[in-house]
Amino acid sequence: MAISEVTQKLLAAKKASGVTFADLEAKVGCDEVWIASVIYRQASASVEEATKIVEAIGADASLIEPLTECPVKGSLEPVIPTDPLIYRFYEIMQVYGMPIKAVVHEKFGDGIMSAIDFSVDVEREPDPKGDRVKIIMCGKFLPYKKW
Amino acid sequence: MAISEVTQKLLAAKKASGVTFADLEAKVGCDEVWIASVIYRQASASVEEATKIVEAIGADASLIEPLTECPVKGSLEPVIPTDPLIYRFYEIMQVYGMPIKAVVHEKFGDGIMSAIDFSVDVEREPDPKGDRVKIIMCGKFLPYKKW
Amino acid sequence: MAISEVTQKLLAAKKASGVTFADLEAKVGCDEVWIASVIYRQASASVEEATKIVEAIGADASLIEPLTECPVKGSLEPVIPTDPLIYRFYEIMQVYGMPIKAVVHEKFGDGIMSAIDFSVDVEREPDPKGDRVKIIMCGKFLPYKKW
Amino acid sequence: MAISEVTQKLLAAKKASGVTFADLEAKVGCDEVWIASVIYRQASASVEEATKIVEAIGADASLIEPLTECPVKGSLEPVIPTDPLIYRFYEIMQVYGMPIKAVVHEKFGDGIMSAIDFSVDVEREPDPKGDRVKIIMCGKFLPYKKW
Amino acid sequence: MAISEVTQKLLAAKKASGVTFADLEAKVGCDEVWIASVIYRQASASVEEATKIVEAIGADASLIEPLTECPVKGSLEPVIPTDPLIYRFYEIMQVYGMPIKAVVHEKFGDGIMSAIDFSVDVEREPDPKGDRVKIIMCGKFLPYKKW
Amino acid sequence: MAISEVTQKLLAAKKASGVTFADLEAKVGCDEVWIASVIYRQASASVEEATKIVEAIGADASLIEPLTECPVKGSLEPVIPTDPLIYRFYEIMQVYGMPIKAVVHEKFGDGIMSAIDFSVDVEREPDPKGDRVKIIMCGKFLPYKKW
Amino acid sequence: MAISEVTQKLLAAKKASGVTFADLEAKVGCDEVWIASVIYRQASASVEEATKIVEAIGADASLIEPLTECPVKGSLEPVIPTDPLIYRFYEIMQVYGMPIKAVVHEKFGDGIMSAIDFSVDVEREPDPKGDRVKIIMCGKFLPYKKW
Amino acid sequence: MAISEVTQKLLAAKKASGVTFADLEAKVGCDEVWIASVIYRQASASVEEATKIVEAIGADASLIEPLTECPVKGSLEPVIPTDPLIYRFYEIMQVYGMPIKAVVHEKFGDGIMSAIDFSVDVEREPDPKGDRVKIIMCGKFLPYKKW
Amino acid sequence: MAISEVTQKLLAAKKASGVTFADLEAKVGCDEVWIASVIYRQASASVEEATKIVEAIGADASLIEPLTECPVKGSLEPVIPTDPLIYRFYEIMQVYGMPIKAVVHEKFGDGIMSAIDFSVDVEREPDPKGDRVKIIMCGKFLPYKKW
Amino acid sequence: MAISEVTQKLLAAKKASGVTFADLEAKVGCDEVWIASVIYRQASASVEEATKIVEAIGADASLIEPLTECPVKGSLEPVIPTDPLIYRFYEIMQVYGMPIKAVVHEKFGDGIMSAIDFSVDVEREPDPKGDRVKIIMCGKFLPYKKW
Repeated sequence: MAISEVTQKLLAAKKASGVTFADLEAKVGCDEVWIASVIYRQASASVEEATKIVEAIGADASLIEPLTECPVKGSLEPVIPTDPLIYRFYEIMQVYGMPIKAVVHEKFGDGIMSAIDFSVDVEREPDPKGDRVKIIMCGKFLPYKKW
Repeated sequence: MAISEVTQKLLAAKKASGVTFADLEAKVGCDEVWIASVIYRQASASVEEATKIVEAIGADASLIEPLTECPVKGSLEPVIPTDPLIYRFYEIMQVYGMPIKAVVHEKFGDGIMSAIDFSVDVEREPDPKGDRVKIIMCGKFLPYKKW
Repeated sequence: MAISEVTQKLLAAKKASGVTFADLEAKVGCDEVWIASVIYRQASASVEEATKIVEAIGADASLIEPLTECPVKGSLEPVIPTDPLIYRFYEIMQVYGMPIKAVVHEKFGDGIMSAIDFSVDVEREPDPKGDRVKIIMCGKFLPYKKW
Repeated sequence: MAISEVTQKLLAAKKASGVTFADLEAKVGCDEVWIASVIYRQASASVEEATKIVEAIGADASLIEPLTECPVKGSLEPVIPTDPLIYRFYEIMQVYGMPIKAVVHEKFGDGIMSAIDFSVDVEREPDPKGDRVKIIMCGKFLPYKKW
Repeated sequence: MAISEVTQKLLAAKKASGVTFADLEAKVGCDEVWIASVIYRQASASVEEATKIVEAIGADASLIEPLTECPVKGSLEPVIPTDPLIYRFYEIMQVYGMPIKAVVHEKFGDGIMSAIDFSVDVEREPDPKGDRVKIIMCGKFLPYKKW
Repeated sequence: MAISEVTQKLLAAKKASGVTFADLEAKVGCDEVWIASVIYRQASASVEEATKIVEAIGADASLIEPLTECPVKGSLEPVIPTDPLIYRFYEIMQVYGMPIKAVVHEKFGDGIMSAIDFSVDVEREPDPKGDRVKIIMCGKFLPYKKW
Repeated sequence: MAISEVTQKLLAAKKASGVTFADLEAKVGCDEVWIASVIYRQASASVEEATKIVEAIGADASLIEPLTECPVKGSLEPVIPTDPLIYRFYEIMQVYGMPIKAVVHEKFGDGIMSAIDFSVDVEREPDPKGDRVKIIMCGKFLPYKKW
Repeated sequence: MAISEVTQKLLAAKKASGVTFADLEAKVGCDEVWIASVIYRQASASVEEATKIVEAIGADASLIEPLTECPVKGSLEPVIPTDPLIYRFYEIMQVYGMPIKAVVHEKFGDGIMSAIDFSVDVEREPDPKGDRVKIIMCGKFLPYKKW
Repeated sequence: MAISEVTQKLLAAKKASGVTFADLEAKVGCDEVWIASVIYRQASASVEEATKIVEAIGADASLIEPLTECPVKGSLEPVIPTDPLIYRFYEIMQVYGMPIKAVVHEKFGDGIMSAIDFSVDVEREPDPKGDRVKIIMCGKFLPYKKW
Repeated sequence: MAISEVTQKLLAAKKASGVTFADLEAKVGCDEVWIASVIYRQASASVEEATKIVEAIGADASLIEPLTECPVKGSLEPVIPTDPLIYRFYEIMQVYGMPIKAVVHEKFGDGIMSAIDFSVDVEREPDPKGDRVKIIMCGKFLPYKKW
């Protein structure tokens, strides 16, 4: 993934400031994953939100405006991601994609889970055998239109 | 996805019997997504579990044994899935993959969410603006070993 | 594109019956492109709609039920379609994709045109210099959710 | 998509000037999508048209001449676009490509919709359930030549 | 290239009959390359043309009707053809594609050579140093539309 | 296609000088397509030819020598070209490749048209229904050697 | 590589007869690699040669005629061959391709080694440290034509 | 192929000096193809060999040391090489790969020709019908180990 | 991976007989992984070894001979394996490939680990925190030849 | 593989210092392959470990901090590695992947060898017929979870 210069500057400022994504969630009033998406230029913020983010991490004010533009999204490379953490999600779909499709269709009929009217949360679930990562995806069901 | 003959026979029997995945969850005592994974030959069941599944949908007893074998997993085709429901998960990783990675690393350090010691649930979340699909993924955090 | 046996039988029956897609639109009460999508197993019909389609073209009644299932969608091969008519749409996106994105963002903000809550019509537009094909796509605008 | 330096300068000037694509349509006398195509270097303008565009957004006059050259067109990357807005058109063809082909052939015979003698419009269609994006593509029908 | 059963039967009949493509050109009144395209299911013939072709090579009359349908065109595999004769055309475009583009643009302006309103001839050009293959492609110039 | 710096300088000089490829053909005594190939670094010229080309367009003499080197040829990107003018040749082979192969084999036997002992011409053919692009490829037939 | 039925029958007959490729070289009067190419349907034989090959291995006479047809050549799959013996040649070009190109150009000028007017021999070279495989490729040098 | 800066400097020095690969063979005492491989950073030389090469072409002494490192080898791009001279070797394997495999197995049993304990020579073979390129590859036969 | 009919029959016989790979290792006198490779048609056995394997699992004697042929090796599909167990080895090379290369070069110089004069063992290593899989690969170091 | 600037500086310092990976293993108290992984930015070190590594090779202290960040891992290019040493591991999986999978499943049941809770060692095994490279991979067995 070619990380843009804007993102690099923001990540550097965030690191220097010691502010975590959880801190940003508290200060900006939006979820930490969504804020991370804004910083990685995959989502666009309002001027107010962008200002809060940039100020919270002590970054240069010139970085506010780029965060408000509609980005060209999605640029993992190569086509199948090689980073092990991100690849696991690809593998999950290889293994559980058709079963999930079967269950969704049984519960909802023909349609999809929206990836736009959509949110994702990341939680740490304590477990004596080793803590667990919990990813909660929630998107509006969109039934196929007939016309 | 080339669906195996075993899977086709099981899906036909399930349809003929009118038994839903939710019914199977109740009868077998395992999650419906996992049971769907067994039927799609992405997971292997014990003889007891396989017997319960096959009997619940009135399928032929000769189908019990194949469900207990370790399958060659993952065979969505083409490389990037074209089915819109499944593609959305690929898109989610294109857009939110790096942000999720950043948040996981901040919460857990260098490592991954296991896709093996892992479960996934599909829930229907009522919403007056249109019901939502909720996908909950939960996997053990595995820190990178140093040696 | 591997055309399924169900589709082949339906196309053969349609040809033998001499019924056109426009005739089907009149008899079934749905758009001809959507009906073609059902026949090509890219959309699922209700039992009533499937019955009307199958009866209108004099096909075997055993073909009604398959038309009501949620299909695995999208299976053009190879990855970039080689059929000249279909390729032109791929080329249109190569050439006009970014300009369209720019205009949509200016008119609507950050989001997409749904391909699910979506319809497409094909019209023949008379023109003395040669008739024109008119494709009208219409999908709900979905703004990116913030959370 | 690697956006050329010329395009970047024009987009920056357009943003600074506050002129919209709709404003450009009024000032230049051409459709906004086509003007966006010129700015993205996918279409070539006449000197007059290029001058109007450049002046309307207050960009440097040295940018007029590049807009009149025949560009090497089409450079979305990767092969299957990852931006969700643009991907939806790819998905539409995966799902509705063969049905559209069937309907076009029934209405016109063997041939294609030209992507050269072609125009595309983007409209906002008000709808109480959420406004809709309307994309109207219109291209000359070209029958296959026999010889 | 998966050669269809229809094509295989026609090629077998042609071989058995000893009729050459040049003979077919004389009998059908169309160019031999176009007739070969019909036999390979890349072009569609009228009923009269199809009847002449099938009868000239003594093939079964049931093969007439398939030749009149609009085929799904273009299915060389793999993506880059491996047959040396066909690959050479791919190589020619790799080497001479941009130079040809430059010359066409200088002679015609921004546009393309149609591949639909198009014909191709194959001639044997005697040469004392070894005969030469002459391929003459001729397509209508289509200028890009402005709108 | 990554256009080399040498090519860019030559194209800029050619534009500034107003010399066309047809002019170059007259001054250098070689075909305009071949000269364009030299400029695009797909063919190598003799010192004399390179000197004539560079002088004719008033380019810097330091550009003569690079034109005499054996280039690494062929670098259209991506693998399947996206520029509509160049793509049409790819499509032509998808549609007419096997028919051409069949006719060549019938006329010549097992072998290929050389892409090395080869020339290509581009002509403008006047036509009241719209002028046509004529591409004439001519290569030595090379029969497969037996040994 | 999908091995054709003709090839499979010939290989089975050859195995049953105990005749080696070296024996065939002696009986047919052509090189063993070329004969193997005929059997694998990558080269076409004359009727006389085909008859000698088929008779030498005691195969059915109906297999003579297919060996005389111009085959569609080259069908290793996947794109980069996975068989270790064949892959090594691909690797050799990855490592030594550019050096060979440099040396050929220095010795011959701009052109290629023909793969059509070409032969290849396989020899066993005794060596006390382990016998060696010697592959001798020999093709006509073809200089690029200027026109 | 991205040619490294070291290689570019060496090739420039070699050109300026007028020393040929054949001259280098005489001065260094190694084969010219291997020396070319060192210059293209596909093989590593000893300090003595690197010194001789660098001095023979009058290049800067700072280039000696890089030639002694183990390079990351093999970087032709794209995956299937487009340069006609190099592509021919790929084509040779498409056409003659399986026949060569069959002959090698008959002569040696199950194993491969090493591409490591391996040499390649390029010779010019005079021929009245046009000189020929002779490529002699020679690698140790490595039988598959059983264990 | 398309598993051949021979392999399927052998695996079925092995399952029916209850003989494990470890049992086969004891009976045949070769390592269990190598025996599995023979059964999966990736390695060729002697007649004696093949006979022992086939008899040990009570399979049909007609399966002996196929096990002695040189197979076309390596046919995992798609290009990047999707089965999670096999993918991990691909991931290991993505992450640790360059570090291993650096260490091997430091210990051995420029060369490779042979994959032909090579063996691999799989062991179960007891561990109170969960047993571990131990894969031991051992191949002859092959230094690059200079010539 | 695009080697980062940090890695390049560290490798240069290591070379200048003459410290080997084996020396680093002794000084840092971690395995040499893991240390190489840290230097290649595929693994993250603690501040103490990073300090020891950087000091041992006399590199600049500003390089300590980058070694402690969670890297985006895995970036061999192209998708199938072309470097012969690294490719052999890919080939090993092509040939021995399914046999290893069969043996692992027989010994452990359905699951995988972790590539995260994982170590790899490289040893030189003396052998009179030529020393051997020994690669020992050891990862925790992770059984598939049922839920």
